Amino acid sequence: MLKRTLSTLVLLSVLSSGCQAYAEAAVKTDALYQVSLINALMQGDYDGTVSVGDLLMVGDTGIGTFDGLDGEMIMLDGVVYKAKADGSVDIQQDLETVPFAAVTFLDNDIARQDIAGLSSIDALKAYLDDLVHQETGDYNRFYVAVIEGRFNTVHVRSVPEQTKPYKPLSEIAETQPEYIYESLEGTIVALRCPDFVEGINVPGWHLHFISKDKTKGGHMLNADLLSGSLKMDVISDLNLKLPNTDSFSSLDLNKDLSSDTEKVESKK
Amino acid sequence: MLKRTLSTLVLLSVLSSGCQAYAEAAVKTDALYQVSLINALMQGDYDGTVSVGDLLMVGDTGIGTFDGLDGEMIMLDGVVYKAKADGSVDIQQDLETVPFAAVTFLDNDIARQDIAGLSSIDALKAYLDDLVHQETGDYNRFYVAVIEGRFNTVHVRSVPEQTKPYKPLSEIAETQPEYIYESLEGTIVALRCPDFVEGINVPGWHLHFISKDKTKGGHMLNADLLSGSLKMDVISDLNLKLPNTDSFSSLDLNKDLSSDTEKVESKK
Repeated sequence: MLKRTLSTLVLLSVLSSGCQAYAEAAVKTDALYQVSLINALMQGDYDGTVSVGDLLMVGDTGIGTFDGLDGEMIMLDGVVYKAKADGSVDIQQDLETVPFAAVTFLDNDIARQDIAGLSSIDALKAYLDDLVHQETGDYNRFYVAVIEGRFNTVHVRSVPEQTKPYKPLSEIAETQPEYIYESLEGTIVALRCPDFVEGINVPGWHLHFISKDKTKGGHMLNADLLSGSLKMDVISDLNLKLPNTDSFSSLDLNKDLSSDTEKVESKK
Repeated sequence: MLKRTLSTLVLLSVLSSGCQAYAEAAVKTDALYQVSLINALMQGDYDGTVSVGDLLMVGDTGIGTFDGLDGEMIMLDGVVYKAKADGSVDIQQDLETVPFAAVTFLDNDIARQDIAGLSSIDALKAYLDDLVHQETGDYNRFYVAVIEGRFNTVHVRSVPEQTKPYKPLSEIAETQPEYIYESLEGTIVALRCPDFVEGINVPGWHLHFISKDKTKGGHMLNADLLSGSLKMDVISDLNLKLPNTDSFSSLDLNKDLSSDTEKVESKK
Protein backbone atom coordinates (compact mmCIF):
# COMPACT_ATOMS: atom_id res chain seq x y z
CA MET A 1 0.00 0.00 0.00
CA LEU A 2 2.72 2.41 0.97
CA LYS A 3 4.86 1.55 -2.01
CA ARG A 4 1.85 2.07 -4.22
CA THR A 5 1.25 5.45 -2.64
CA LEU A 6 4.85 6.43 -3.25
CA SER A 7 4.74 5.23 -6.82
CA THR A 8 1.53 7.12 -7.38
CA LEU A 9 3.09 10.22 -5.96
CA VAL A 10 6.13 9.86 -8.16
CA LEU A 11 3.87 9.33 -11.13
CA LEU A 12 1.76 12.34 -10.22
CA SER A 13 4.94 14.30 -9.87
CA VAL A 14 6.15 13.27 -13.27
CA LEU A 15 2.77 13.98 -14.78
CA SER A 16 2.32 17.33 -13.10
CA SER A 17 5.82 18.67 -13.57
CA GLY A 18 6.71 16.75 -16.69
CA CYS A 19 10.03 16.14 -15.08
CA GLN A 20 11.57 12.83 -14.10
CA ALA A 21 14.32 14.65 -12.27
CA TYR A 22 11.93 16.06 -9.71
CA ALA A 23 10.68 12.60 -8.92
CA GLU A 24 14.23 11.42 -8.51
CA ALA A 25 15.42 14.39 -6.53
CA ALA A 26 12.64 15.24 -4.14
CA VAL A 27 10.60 12.06 -3.80
CA LYS A 28 13.64 9.81 -3.90
CA THR A 29 12.73 6.58 -2.23
CA ASP A 30 16.13 4.88 -2.43
CA ALA A 31 17.64 6.97 0.31
CA LEU A 32 18.82 5.82 3.69
CA TYR A 33 16.55 7.76 6.03
CA GLN A 34 18.21 8.39 9.38
CA VAL A 35 16.79 9.81 12.60
CA SER A 36 19.24 11.77 14.81
CA LEU A 37 22.96 11.11 15.26
CA ILE A 38 24.91 8.29 16.88
CA ASN A 39 26.70 10.96 18.93
CA ALA A 40 23.35 12.17 20.25
CA LEU A 41 22.42 8.61 21.24
CA MET A 42 25.85 8.08 22.80
CA GLN A 43 25.21 11.08 25.03
CA GLY A 44 21.87 9.79 26.26
CA ASP A 45 19.38 11.53 23.95
CA TYR A 46 16.94 8.62 24.16
CA ASP A 47 13.56 10.35 23.78
CA GLY A 48 11.72 9.17 20.68
CA THR A 49 11.15 11.88 18.07
CA VAL A 50 9.86 10.02 14.99
CA SER A 51 6.97 7.57 15.06
CA VAL A 52 7.12 4.03 13.77
CA GLY A 53 4.30 5.03 11.42
CA ASP A 54 6.42 7.79 9.91
CA LEU A 55 9.44 5.51 9.62
CA LEU A 56 7.37 2.98 7.70
CA MET A 57 6.62 5.69 5.16
CA VAL A 58 10.29 6.09 4.30
CA GLY A 59 11.47 2.50 4.55
CA ASP A 60 10.62 -1.17 4.95
CA THR A 61 14.01 -2.38 6.22
CA GLY A 62 16.39 -1.06 8.85
CA ILE A 63 17.67 -0.90 12.39
CA GLY A 64 17.45 1.42 15.37
CA THR A 65 16.21 1.67 18.92
CA PHE A 66 13.09 2.93 20.74
CA ASP A 67 11.97 5.68 23.06
CA GLY A 68 13.84 5.39 26.34
CA LEU A 69 16.34 3.04 24.67
CA ASP A 70 13.77 0.30 25.17
CA GLY A 71 15.11 -2.50 22.99
CA GLU A 72 16.71 -3.06 19.61
CA MET A 73 14.72 -2.22 16.47
CA ILE A 74 14.56 -4.57 13.52
CA MET A 75 12.50 -3.32 10.55
CA LEU A 76 11.93 -6.17 8.12
CA ASP A 77 9.44 -6.49 5.25
CA GLY A 78 7.67 -3.34 6.42
CA VAL A 79 7.14 -4.57 9.99
CA VAL A 80 8.88 -3.03 13.01
CA TYR A 81 9.98 -5.46 15.74
CA LYS A 82 11.31 -4.62 19.18
CA ALA A 83 13.80 -7.08 20.69
CA LYS A 84 13.57 -6.32 24.38
CA ALA A 85 16.15 -6.73 27.12
CA ASP A 86 14.13 -9.61 28.62
CA GLY A 87 14.65 -11.59 25.42
CA SER A 88 11.13 -11.19 24.04
CA VAL A 89 10.14 -9.69 20.69
CA ASP A 90 7.07 -7.54 19.99
CA ILE A 91 5.66 -5.97 16.85
CA GLN A 92 5.55 -2.21 17.30
CA GLN A 93 2.55 -0.06 16.46
CA ASP A 94 2.61 3.19 14.51
CA LEU A 95 2.53 5.47 17.54
CA GLU A 96 5.68 4.07 19.15
CA THR A 97 8.62 6.43 18.67
CA VAL A 98 12.33 6.11 17.96
CA PRO A 99 15.24 8.36 19.02
CA PHE A 100 17.64 6.83 16.48
CA ALA A 101 17.14 4.66 13.42
CA ALA A 102 18.25 4.16 9.82
CA VAL A 103 15.85 2.63 7.32
CA THR A 104 15.36 2.30 3.57
CA PHE A 105 13.12 0.63 1.03
CA LEU A 106 15.22 -2.45 0.30
CA ASP A 107 16.29 -2.72 -3.33
CA ASN A 108 17.73 -5.96 -4.57
CA ASP A 109 20.90 -4.46 -6.07
CA ILE A 110 23.07 -7.43 -5.11
CA ALA A 111 21.82 -10.97 -4.41
CA ARG A 112 23.46 -14.22 -3.30
CA GLN A 113 21.82 -17.58 -2.68
CA ASP A 114 24.84 -19.60 -1.66
CA ILE A 115 26.25 -18.19 1.54
CA ALA A 116 27.79 -20.91 3.71
CA GLY A 117 30.17 -21.49 6.55
CA LEU A 118 30.66 -18.06 8.05
CA SER A 119 31.46 -19.06 11.59
CA SER A 120 31.85 -15.66 13.25
CA ILE A 121 30.56 -12.12 12.96
CA ASP A 122 34.00 -11.08 11.74
CA ALA A 123 33.85 -13.67 8.96
CA LEU A 124 30.37 -12.44 8.09
CA LYS A 125 31.48 -8.80 7.93
CA ALA A 126 34.49 -9.74 5.84
CA TYR A 127 32.22 -11.66 3.45
CA LEU A 128 29.90 -8.65 3.14
CA ASP A 129 32.83 -6.29 2.60
CA ASP A 130 34.28 -8.52 -0.11
CA LEU A 131 30.88 -8.66 -1.79
CA VAL A 132 30.50 -4.87 -1.72
CA HIS A 133 33.95 -4.36 -3.17
CA GLN A 134 33.55 -7.06 -5.79
CA GLU A 135 30.20 -5.70 -6.97
CA THR A 136 30.75 -1.94 -6.68
CA GLY A 137 34.52 -1.41 -6.50
CA ASP A 138 34.39 0.83 -3.44
CA TYR A 139 33.00 1.42 0.05
CA ASN A 140 31.94 5.04 -0.42
CA ARG A 141 28.17 4.58 -0.08
CA PHE A 142 25.62 3.11 2.31
CA TYR A 143 24.69 -0.57 2.16
CA VAL A 144 21.72 -2.35 3.71
CA ALA A 145 21.83 -6.14 3.64
CA VAL A 146 19.18 -8.68 4.61
CA ILE A 147 20.57 -12.18 5.20
CA GLU A 148 18.21 -15.08 5.75
CA GLY A 149 19.94 -18.12 7.11
CA ARG A 150 20.34 -21.16 9.28
CA PHE A 151 22.59 -20.60 12.26
CA ASN A 152 24.53 -22.89 14.58
CA THR A 153 24.60 -20.08 17.11
CA VAL A 154 23.50 -16.48 17.35
CA HIS A 155 24.77 -14.22 20.12
CA VAL A 156 22.71 -11.08 20.66
CA ARG A 157 22.14 -8.42 23.26
CA SER A 158 19.44 -5.87 23.84
CA VAL A 159 19.30 -2.63 25.74
CA PRO A 160 17.08 -2.29 28.80
CA GLU A 161 14.61 0.61 28.99
CA GLN A 162 16.08 3.64 30.70
CA THR A 163 14.56 6.20 33.01
CA LYS A 164 15.56 9.84 33.34
CA PRO A 165 18.03 11.24 33.97
CA TYR A 166 19.44 9.14 31.14
CA LYS A 167 22.97 7.76 31.46
CA PRO A 168 25.34 7.81 28.46
CA LEU A 169 25.17 4.72 26.24
CA SER A 170 28.73 3.71 27.12
CA GLU A 171 27.66 3.14 30.73
CA ILE A 172 24.52 1.21 29.81
CA ALA A 173 26.27 -1.03 27.30
CA GLU A 174 28.33 -2.54 30.08
CA THR A 175 25.28 -4.13 31.69
CA GLN A 176 23.13 -5.21 28.75
CA PRO A 177 21.56 -8.66 28.84
CA GLU A 178 23.02 -11.07 26.29
CA TYR A 179 21.50 -14.20 24.81
CA ILE A 180 23.08 -17.06 22.91
CA TYR A 181 20.69 -19.12 20.79
CA GLU A 182 21.55 -22.45 19.18
CA SER A 183 20.36 -24.09 16.01
CA LEU A 184 17.83 -21.66 14.63
CA GLU A 185 16.71 -19.91 11.49
CA GLY A 186 16.48 -16.16 11.23
CA THR A 187 17.32 -12.93 9.48
CA ILE A 188 20.09 -10.41 9.88
CA VAL A 189 19.38 -6.79 8.97
CA ALA A 190 22.74 -5.10 8.47
CA LEU A 191 23.80 -1.54 7.71
CA ARG A 192 27.23 -0.47 6.49
CA CYS A 193 28.11 3.22 6.72
CA PRO A 194 31.18 4.86 5.16
CA ASP A 195 33.90 6.25 7.40
CA PHE A 196 32.97 9.85 6.62
CA VAL A 197 29.78 9.57 8.71
CA GLU A 198 31.80 9.28 11.92
CA GLY A 199 29.72 10.97 14.64
CA ILE A 200 26.59 10.76 12.48
CA ASN A 201 26.31 6.97 12.34
CA VAL A 202 28.60 4.00 12.98
CA PRO A 203 31.26 3.46 10.28
CA GLY A 204 31.38 -0.15 9.12
CA TRP A 205 28.80 -2.90 9.57
CA HIS A 206 26.14 -2.85 12.29
CA LEU A 207 23.97 -5.99 12.50
CA HIS A 208 20.64 -6.73 14.15
CA PHE A 209 18.99 -10.17 14.20
CA ILE A 210 15.48 -11.58 14.38
CA SER A 211 14.57 -15.25 14.43
CA LYS A 212 12.34 -16.74 11.74
CA ASP A 213 9.52 -17.25 14.26
CA LYS A 214 9.95 -13.63 15.41
CA THR A 215 10.41 -14.59 19.06
CA LYS A 216 14.13 -13.83 19.49
CA GLY A 217 16.34 -10.97 18.40
CA GLY A 218 18.69 -8.15 19.23
CA HIS A 219 21.92 -6.41 18.40
CA MET A 220 24.20 -9.12 16.99
CA LEU A 221 27.47 -9.71 18.84
CA ASN A 222 28.41 -12.95 17.12
CA ALA A 223 27.01 -15.63 14.84
CA ASP A 224 27.88 -18.95 13.28
CA LEU A 225 26.05 -18.98 9.96
CA LEU A 226 25.64 -22.41 8.36
CA SER A 227 23.96 -21.33 5.14
CA GLY A 228 21.89 -18.50 3.82
CA SER A 229 20.89 -16.06 1.12
CA LEU A 230 21.29 -12.33 0.84
CA LYS A 231 19.83 -9.19 -0.69
CA MET A 232 21.79 -5.96 -0.58
CA ASP A 233 20.80 -2.39 -1.38
CA VAL A 234 23.54 0.03 -2.47
CA ILE A 235 22.42 3.49 -1.39
CA SER A 236 23.87 6.84 -2.50
CA ASP A 237 21.51 9.21 -0.70
CA LEU A 238 21.32 9.92 3.01
CA ASN A 239 18.30 11.79 4.37
CA LEU A 240 19.26 12.86 7.86
CA LYS A 241 16.59 14.19 10.22
CA LEU A 242 17.82 15.96 13.35
CA PRO A 243 15.38 16.09 16.30
CA ASN A 244 13.67 19.41 16.96
CA THR A 245 13.96 18.94 20.71
CA ASP A 246 15.51 20.88 23.55
CA SER A 247 17.50 17.84 24.58
CA PHE A 248 19.09 17.57 21.13
CA SER A 249 19.81 21.30 21.17
CA SER A 250 21.59 20.98 24.50
CA LEU A 251 24.08 18.36 23.29
CA ASP A 252 27.75 19.08 22.72
CA LEU A 253 28.10 17.40 19.34
CA ASN A 254 31.75 18.37 18.90
CA LYS A 255 33.00 15.61 21.18
CA ASP A 256 34.92 12.77 19.54
CA LEU A 257 33.06 9.72 20.81
CA SER A 258 34.42 7.30 18.23
CA SER A 259 36.26 5.08 20.72
CA ASP A 260 33.21 4.96 23.00
CA THR A 261 31.02 4.13 20.01
CA GLU A 262 33.28 1.31 18.92
CA LYS A 263 33.26 -0.10 22.44
CA VAL A 264 29.46 0.02 22.62
CA GLU A 265 28.87 -1.51 19.20
CA SER A 266 31.38 -4.33 19.27
CA LYS A 267 31.56 -7.59 21.12
CA LYS A 268 32.39 -7.41 24.77
CA MET B 1 5.82 27.51 -10.06
CA LEU B 2 8.01 24.99 -8.38
CA LYS B 3 6.79 25.83 -4.94
CA ARG B 4 3.26 25.45 -6.21
CA THR B 5 4.13 22.04 -7.62
CA LEU B 6 5.63 21.00 -4.31
CA SER B 7 2.64 22.26 -2.36
CA THR B 8 0.31 20.45 -4.72
CA LEU B 9 2.30 17.28 -4.25
CA VAL B 10 2.22 17.58 -0.50
CA LEU B 11 -1.49 18.21 -0.69
CA LEU B 12 -1.99 15.24 -3.00
CA SER B 13 0.04 13.19 -0.59
CA VAL B 14 -2.05 14.24 2.35
CA LEU B 15 -5.25 13.65 0.42
CA SER B 16 -4.21 10.29 -0.94
CA SER B 17 -2.63 8.88 2.20
CA GLY B 18 -4.60 10.85 4.74
CA CYS B 19 -1.36 11.38 6.55
CA GLN B 20 0.41 14.64 7.27
CA ALA B 21 3.43 12.72 8.50
CA TYR B 22 4.15 11.33 5.07
CA ALA B 23 4.17 14.80 3.60
CA GLU B 24 6.56 15.92 6.28
CA ALA B 25 8.81 12.90 6.13
CA ALA B 26 9.15 12.09 2.47
CA VAL B 27 8.37 15.31 0.62
CA LYS B 28 10.06 17.50 3.18
CA THR B 29 11.03 20.74 1.52
CA ASP B 30 12.84 22.36 4.43
CA ALA B 31 15.92 20.22 4.07
CA LEU B 32 19.38 21.28 3.12
CA TYR B 33 19.94 19.39 -0.10
CA GLN B 34 23.62 18.65 -0.70
CA VAL B 35 25.40 17.24 -3.73
CA SER B 36 28.56 15.19 -3.01
CA LEU B 37 31.08 15.73 -0.22
CA ILE B 38 33.60 18.47 0.49
CA ASN B 39 36.23 15.71 0.73
CA ALA B 40 35.37 14.59 -2.80
CA LEU B 41 35.74 18.16 -4.06
CA MET B 42 39.00 18.57 -2.14
CA GLN B 43 40.38 15.56 -3.99
CA GLY B 44 39.48 16.92 -7.42
CA ASP B 45 36.13 15.28 -8.14
CA TYR B 46 34.97 18.26 -10.23
CA ASP B 47 32.68 16.62 -12.80
CA GLY B 48 29.13 17.91 -12.50
CA THR B 49 26.59 15.24 -11.52
CA VAL B 50 23.38 17.17 -10.78
CA SER B 51 21.84 19.71 -13.14
CA VAL B 52 20.95 23.26 -12.23
CA GLY B 53 17.39 22.38 -13.20
CA ASP B 54 17.30 19.57 -10.65
CA LEU B 55 18.86 21.78 -7.98
CA LEU B 56 16.15 24.39 -8.52
CA MET B 57 13.57 21.72 -7.70
CA VAL B 58 14.98 21.24 -4.22
CA GLY B 59 15.94 24.81 -3.37
CA ASP B 60 15.89 28.49 -4.23
CA THR B 61 18.91 29.58 -2.18
CA GLY B 62 22.39 28.18 -1.75
CA ILE B 63 26.02 27.92 -2.73
CA GLY B 64 28.27 25.56 -4.66
CA THR B 65 30.46 25.30 -7.72
CA PHE B 66 30.14 24.12 -11.32
CA ASP B 67 31.31 21.35 -13.61
CA GLY B 68 35.09 21.54 -13.96
CA LEU B 69 35.22 23.84 -10.92
CA ASP B 70 34.21 26.65 -13.28
CA GLY B 71 33.27 29.44 -10.89
CA GLU B 72 31.43 30.00 -7.64
CA MET B 73 27.70 29.26 -7.48
CA ILE B 74 25.26 31.65 -5.89
CA MET B 75 21.62 30.51 -5.88
CA LEU B 76 19.38 33.41 -4.91
CA ASP B 77 15.60 33.83 -5.29
CA GLY B 78 15.47 30.72 -7.46
CA VAL B 79 18.13 31.91 -9.92
CA VAL B 80 21.54 30.29 -10.25
CA TYR B 81 24.47 32.63 -10.88
CA LYS B 82 28.02 31.71 -11.77
CA ALA B 83 30.75 34.09 -10.58
CA LYS B 84 33.64 33.27 -12.89
CA ALA B 85 37.35 33.58 -12.35
CA ASP B 86 37.50 36.50 -14.82
CA GLY B 87 35.25 38.53 -12.53
CA SER B 88 32.09 38.24 -14.63
CA VAL B 89 28.73 36.79 -13.52
CA ASP B 90 26.34 34.76 -15.69
CA ILE B 91 22.91 33.26 -15.06
CA GLN B 92 23.11 29.48 -15.44
CA GLN B 93 20.65 27.44 -17.45
CA ASP B 94 18.99 24.21 -16.33
CA LEU B 95 21.37 21.90 -18.17
CA GLU B 96 24.54 23.18 -16.49
CA THR B 97 25.77 20.75 -13.84
CA VAL B 98 27.33 20.98 -10.39
CA PRO B 99 29.80 18.63 -8.66
CA PHE B 100 29.15 20.14 -5.22
CA ALA B 101 26.41 22.35 -3.84
CA ALA B 102 24.11 22.87 -0.86
CA VAL B 103 20.72 24.51 -1.36
CA THR B 104 17.38 24.90 0.38
CA PHE B 105 14.08 26.67 0.06
CA LEU B 106 14.75 29.70 2.23
CA ASP B 107 12.40 30.00 5.19
CA ASN B 108 12.31 33.21 7.12
CA ASP B 109 12.86 31.66 10.56
CA ILE B 110 14.97 34.55 11.83
CA ALA B 111 14.93 38.10 10.45
CA ARG B 112 16.87 41.28 11.20
CA GLN B 113 16.51 44.70 9.56
CA ASP B 114 19.15 46.61 11.46
CA ILE B 115 22.53 45.11 10.76
CA ALA B 116 25.25 47.76 10.82
CA GLY B 117 28.97 48.26 11.13
CA LEU B 118 30.38 44.76 10.63
CA SER B 119 33.77 45.69 9.27
CA SER B 120 35.26 42.26 8.59
CA ILE B 121 34.19 38.77 7.66
CA ASP B 122 35.14 37.64 11.17
CA ALA B 123 32.85 40.29 12.67
CA LEU B 124 30.11 39.16 10.29
CA LYS B 125 30.51 35.50 11.24
CA ALA B 126 30.56 36.39 14.93
CA TYR B 127 27.35 38.40 14.46
CA LEU B 128 25.70 35.45 12.70
CA ASP B 129 26.87 33.03 15.37
CA ASP B 130 25.54 35.27 18.14
CA LEU B 131 22.22 35.51 16.32
CA VAL B 132 21.96 31.73 15.92
CA HIS B 133 22.73 31.15 19.57
CA GLN B 134 20.44 33.89 20.79
CA GLU B 135 17.49 32.65 18.70
CA THR B 136 17.96 28.88 18.93
CA GLY B 137 20.25 28.25 21.91
CA ASP B 138 22.63 25.97 20.03
CA TYR B 139 24.66 25.36 16.86
CA ASN B 140 23.58 21.78 16.22
CA ARG B 141 21.69 22.34 12.95
CA PHE B 142 22.22 23.83 9.50
CA TYR B 143 21.67 27.54 8.88
CA VAL B 144 21.28 29.37 5.58
CA ALA B 145 21.39 33.17 5.77
CA VAL B 146 20.74 35.77 3.08
CA ILE B 147 22.10 39.20 3.93
CA GLU B 148 21.28 42.17 1.72
CA GLY B 149 23.47 45.14 2.41
CA ARG B 150 25.57 48.13 1.52
CA PHE B 151 29.27 47.46 1.66
CA ASN B 152 32.33 49.67 1.94
CA THR B 153 34.38 46.82 0.52
CA VAL B 154 33.84 43.26 -0.58
CA HIS B 155 36.78 40.91 -1.16
CA VAL B 156 35.94 37.83 -3.20
CA ARG B 157 37.70 35.17 -5.20
CA SER B 158 36.54 32.68 -7.79
CA VAL B 159 37.93 29.42 -9.02
CA PRO B 160 39.15 29.09 -12.61
CA GLU B 161 37.80 26.27 -14.78
CA GLN B 162 39.97 23.16 -14.60
CA THR B 163 40.92 20.63 -17.22
CA LYS B 164 41.66 16.96 -16.66
CA PRO B 165 43.57 15.47 -15.00
CA TYR B 166 42.12 17.56 -12.18
CA LYS B 167 44.44 18.83 -9.46
CA PRO B 168 43.32 18.78 -5.80
CA LEU B 169 41.52 21.89 -4.62
CA SER B 170 44.28 22.80 -2.19
CA GLU B 171 46.64 23.36 -5.14
CA ILE B 172 44.14 25.38 -7.14
CA ALA B 173 43.15 27.60 -4.25
CA GLU B 174 46.66 29.02 -4.13
CA THR B 175 46.28 30.67 -7.53
CA GLN B 176 42.67 31.84 -7.60
CA PRO B 177 41.93 35.35 -8.89
CA GLU B 178 40.75 37.74 -6.19
CA TYR B 179 38.74 40.94 -6.54
CA ILE B 180 38.17 43.78 -4.11
CA TYR B 181 35.13 45.92 -4.82
CA GLU B 182 34.39 49.24 -3.13
CA SER B 183 31.15 50.97 -2.26
CA LEU B 184 28.51 48.64 -3.59
CA GLU B 185 25.24 46.95 -2.72
CA GLY B 186 24.81 43.22 -2.83
CA THR B 187 23.76 40.00 -1.18
CA ILE B 188 25.61 37.39 0.83
CA VAL B 189 24.36 33.80 0.71
CA ALA B 190 25.83 32.04 3.73
CA LEU B 191 25.71 28.46 4.98
CA ARG B 192 26.66 27.31 8.47
CA CYS B 193 27.27 23.59 9.02
CA PRO B 194 27.70 21.91 12.39
CA ASP B 195 31.06 20.41 13.31
CA PHE B 196 29.80 16.84 12.95
CA VAL B 197 29.68 17.18 9.15
CA GLU B 198 33.48 17.35 8.96
CA GLY B 199 34.46 15.71 5.66
CA ILE B 200 30.89 16.02 4.35
CA ASN B 201 30.73 19.82 4.26
CA VAL B 202 32.64 22.72 5.81
CA PRO B 203 31.99 23.23 9.54
CA GLY B 204 31.19 26.86 10.36
CA TRP B 205 30.16 29.66 8.02
CA HIS B 206 30.85 29.64 4.29
CA LEU B 207 29.86 32.83 2.43
CA HIS B 208 29.33 33.63 -1.22
CA PHE B 209 28.50 37.11 -2.56
CA ILE B 210 26.68 38.62 -5.51
CA SER B 211 26.30 42.33 -6.23
CA LYS B 212 22.84 43.91 -6.48
CA ASP B 213 23.31 44.49 -10.23
CA LYS B 214 24.41 40.82 -10.60
CA THR B 215 27.69 41.73 -12.30
CA LYS B 216 30.16 40.84 -9.52
CA GLY B 217 30.45 37.95 -7.14
CA GLY B 218 32.40 35.04 -5.73
CA HIS B 219 33.53 33.23 -2.61
CA MET B 220 33.75 35.88 0.09
CA LEU B 221 37.15 36.36 1.72
CA ASN B 222 36.37 39.59 3.52
CA ALA B 223 33.78 42.35 3.71
CA ASP B 224 33.10 45.68 5.37
CA LEU B 225 29.32 45.78 5.76
CA LEU B 226 27.87 49.24 6.42
CA SER B 227 24.24 48.25 6.87
CA GLY B 228 21.91 45.50 5.89
CA SER B 229 19.05 43.13 6.59
CA LEU B 230 18.95 39.39 7.02
CA LYS B 231 16.78 36.32 6.66
CA MET B 232 17.91 33.05 8.15
CA ASP B 233 16.59 29.51 7.77
CA VAL B 234 17.20 27.04 10.60
CA ILE B 235 17.37 23.58 9.02
CA SER B 236 17.20 20.23 10.79
CA ASP B 237 17.24 17.90 7.79
CA LEU B 238 20.15 17.13 5.49
CA ASN B 239 19.50 15.34 2.21
CA LEU B 240 22.87 14.18 0.97
CA LYS B 241 23.22 12.90 -2.58
CA LEU B 242 26.45 11.05 -3.41
CA PRO B 243 27.45 10.95 -7.09
CA ASN B 244 26.92 7.67 -8.93
CA THR B 245 30.17 8.09 -10.83
CA ASP B 246 33.34 6.07 -11.21
CA SER B 247 35.40 9.04 -10.14
CA PHE B 248 33.49 9.30 -6.86
CA SER B 249 33.83 5.56 -6.32
CA SER B 250 37.59 5.78 -6.79
CA LEU B 251 38.10 8.34 -4.02
CA ASP B 252 39.71 7.51 -0.70
CA LEU B 253 37.21 9.23 1.56
CA ASN B 254 38.91 8.16 4.76
CA LYS B 255 41.56 10.86 4.53
CA ASP B 256 41.39 13.65 7.08
CA LEU B 257 41.44 16.74 4.87
CA SER B 258 40.18 19.17 7.50
CA SER B 259 43.32 21.30 7.61
CA ASP B 260 43.46 21.47 3.80
CA THR B 261 39.77 22.41 3.74
CA GLU B 262 40.24 25.16 6.27
CA LYS B 263 43.14 26.54 4.24
CA VAL B 264 41.12 26.51 1.04
CA GLU B 265 38.02 28.11 2.54
CA SER B 266 39.60 30.85 4.60
CA LYS B 267 41.31 34.07 3.74
CA LYS B 268 44.81 33.80 2.35
